[in-house]
Amino acid sequence: MKLWDIYATMKSDVSFIERELERTIVSDHELLNETSLHLLKSGGKRIRPVFVLLAGKFGTYDLEQLKRVAVPLELIHMASLVHDDVIDDANTRRGNLTVKSKWDNRIAMYTGDYIYGKALMLITELKNPSIHQILSKAMVQMCLGEMEQIRDFFNTEQSVRQYLLRIRRKTALLIAISCQLGALAAGASAKVSQALYRYGYNVGMTFQIRDDVLDLIGTEAQLGKPPGNDIKQGNITLPVLYALQEPKLREPLLAHIHHIRERNGETDVTEALELIRGSQGIRTAEELANRYLDKALEALKALPNQRAKKSLKDIAHFIANRSH
Amino acid sequence: MKLWDIYATMKSDVSFIERELERTIVSDHELLNETSLHLLKSGGKRIRPVFVLLAGKFGTYDLEQLKRVAVPLELIHMASLVHDDVIDDANTRRGNLTVKSKWDNRIAMYTGDYIYGKALMLITELKNPSIHQILSKAMVQMCLGEMEQIRDFFNTEQSVRQYLLRIRRKTALLIAISCQLGALAAGASAKVSQALYRYGYNVGMTFQIRDDVLDLIGTEAQLGKPPGNDIKQGNITLPVLYALQEPKLREPLLAHIHHIRERNGETDVTEALELIRGSQGIRTAEELANRYLDKALEALKALPNQRAKKSLKDIAHFIANRSH
Repeated sequence: MKLWDIYATMKSDVSFIERELERTIVSDHELLNETSLHLLKSGGKRIRPVFVLLAGKFGTYDLEQLKRVAVPLELIHMASLVHDDVIDDANTRRGNLTVKSKWDNRIAMYTGDYIYGKALMLITELKNPSIHQILSKAMVQMCLGEMEQIRDFFNTEQSVRQYLLRIRRKTALLIAISCQLGALAAGASAKVSQALYRYGYNVGMTFQIRDDVLDLIGTEAQLGKPPGNDIKQGNITLPVLYALQEPKLREPLLAHIHHIRERNGETDVTEALELIRGSQGIRTAEELANRYLDKALEALKALPNQRAKKSLKDIAHFIANRSH
Repeated sequence: MKLWDIYATMKSDVSFIERELERTIVSDHELLNETSLHLLKSGGKRIRPVFVLLAGKFGTYDLEQLKRVAVPLELIHMASLVHDDVIDDANTRRGNLTVKSKWDNRIAMYTGDYIYGKALMLITELKNPSIHQILSKAMVQMCLGEMEQIRDFFNTEQSVRQYLLRIRRKTALLIAISCQLGALAAGASAKVSQALYRYGYNVGMTFQIRDDVLDLIGTEAQLGKPPGNDIKQGNITLPVLYALQEPKLREPLLAHIHHIRERNGETDVTEALELIRGSQGIRTAEELANRYLDKALEALKALPNQRAKKSLKDIAHFIANRSH
C-alpha cells in the first residue's frame, strides 16, 4: 500500500489543510510571502496533519477545530527545517533550493521565526490551555534535540542511548503530539489521547531510524540526493554506531570519519558507505526500528475499531518499509 | 530621577524575577546552559518585567501569577536580541561578547529558539488563552519588524511612516503588551489594560526614537560603544530620514551612505555623523519622541491614582531623557 492510497480516503480534508497552510502564512510582507510559500511549495508528506486528522476521528471530528492543530504542527515542522538548513548549510531539500541558499541565512532565520509565530497564533485560537502547554514543551525538547545534534557531530564515542534520546526529541515527539493533540482537539478521552501519543512516539522513532538507514543504503534516484549526507555532515546515526562496535570495522571506519571531518564533508564517502553496508549495523538498526513498529501497533490496540485505526496501522507499516 | 531609584521601590520583586529568569532557562544541557546564562548575565534594564509588575498593581497583585508574564516577556526580548546579533553580525552587546561571537551563529540561533520555547512554556501555565494569543500575535509582528529592517537596510527612499511602523513592530509592541498582559494577569478591567497598552506603546515608540538619536549623538563613554552603529549597519533611522529631507544635506549624506554600503560598514563614519548632527534631524526626531511621551502620559490619566501610576510616569520621563 502506498501513502497516497491511505491519504485518498481523506483527500478533501488533506486538501483543505493544504489551503489553510497557505492561507495562514500569507502576509502583506512580500519577502516573507515569497520565502514562506517557497518553503510550503517545496512539498513534504504532510504526515503530521494526517496524524492530527486521523486522531481526530476518535473524538468529535470537527475540521475547523482540527485545522488549528494540524496547520500549526506542520508549520512548526517547516520552521524547524528552515532553521536546520542554516545549521546544516544545506543548499537543497527535496530537490528544491533551500531558503538559506535561495536567499540567505538571516532571511532563513526570520522566516523560521515568523512561521513559528504564525503557528502559535493559530493554535492559541483553541481555548484549551493544555494544548498550548503540550506544544510549547515539545518545542523546547525539539531545540534540545537540535543542540544535541550539533554537540554530537562527529562524536564517535556517543552511545546508542544518546542517539535514541536525540531522535526522540528531534523527530518522535512532534509526531507523538500530533496524534495526541488531534485527539484532544476532538475532545477524545484521556485514555485514547494517551494511546495515540504512544503510537505516534513509536512511529516517529521508526520513521527516523528508517530515514537514517535510507541515507546509507538508498540510491540517488530513491533519495533525490546522493546517499551519505548524514555522515558528510558528521551526523553519526544508528547503523554507524552499531558498525563501530564491530572490532574489525572500528578502526577503518574511524579513519574514514576522521578524514570526512578534516575535509568538512567535501570528500567522496563511497568507501565509508561500503564499510557500513557490509556491517551488521544496517540490519541491527532495522531490527530496532521494527521493535518500535511493534510498539506502535501495540498502542493501537487500546483504540476502538474503526477505519482510522486501520489507516494508522497502514501508515505505520508504510513508514517502516518505505524506500524513499 | 534615575531608573534604579524607581526600581528601588520594588527591589525585592525585581530580584525575585531575576532569580526566576535564571531558574527558567537552566537546563541539564551544558552548552545551552552556558549560552543562555551568558546572555542573561550580560544584563539589560529588565524594563519589560518592571512594566509587568507595575501594571499588575492595577489589579490583584500576585507575584506568582505575574512572574508567568514577566519572565516570558524578558526572555522573548532576550531571544530576539540573540537572533538580532546573528543578523547584525554583532560581536559585542552592552560591552559583552555576543553568543554568536563567543560561540557561533548556529548556536546563537538555537539558543534563541530554546529561550523562545522556554518563554512559551512558562506563559502557557496561565490558564487564560487570550494572554497566549496576544503574545503570539506580538511575536509575529516582531518578526515582521525584523524582516522589514533587513529589507530596508540602506534604503534611503523609505518614508517616515515606514520607519515608524518598523519600530512599532520591533520595539513598541512588546513593551505595550508587557503593560497589557501584566494588567490581564492581575485580573484588571479591560479599560485599565487598554490604557496600559496605550501607555506602553507610546513609551516604546519614545524609547526607540531616543535610542536611535543616542546612537547618533552619544559619546563612546555614554553608549559603551562608538556612535554610528546604526548607519554602519545600514539601519536608516528617523534623524537620518529627516536630514535627507534637507536640500543642502541630501546629496552629501547620500554619498556618505553609499560609501558606507560599499565598504560594508568598515569605514569611518565621523563625517556622516557630523552632517546629521548639523541638520534639523536630531531636533525634529526628539520632538516626535516627545509627542509620543505626551501620549503615554495622557494614557495614564485613565488609571486610578496610586504609587504605580507615579512610577510609570517617572519611567516615561526617564526614557525620553536618558543619555545612555
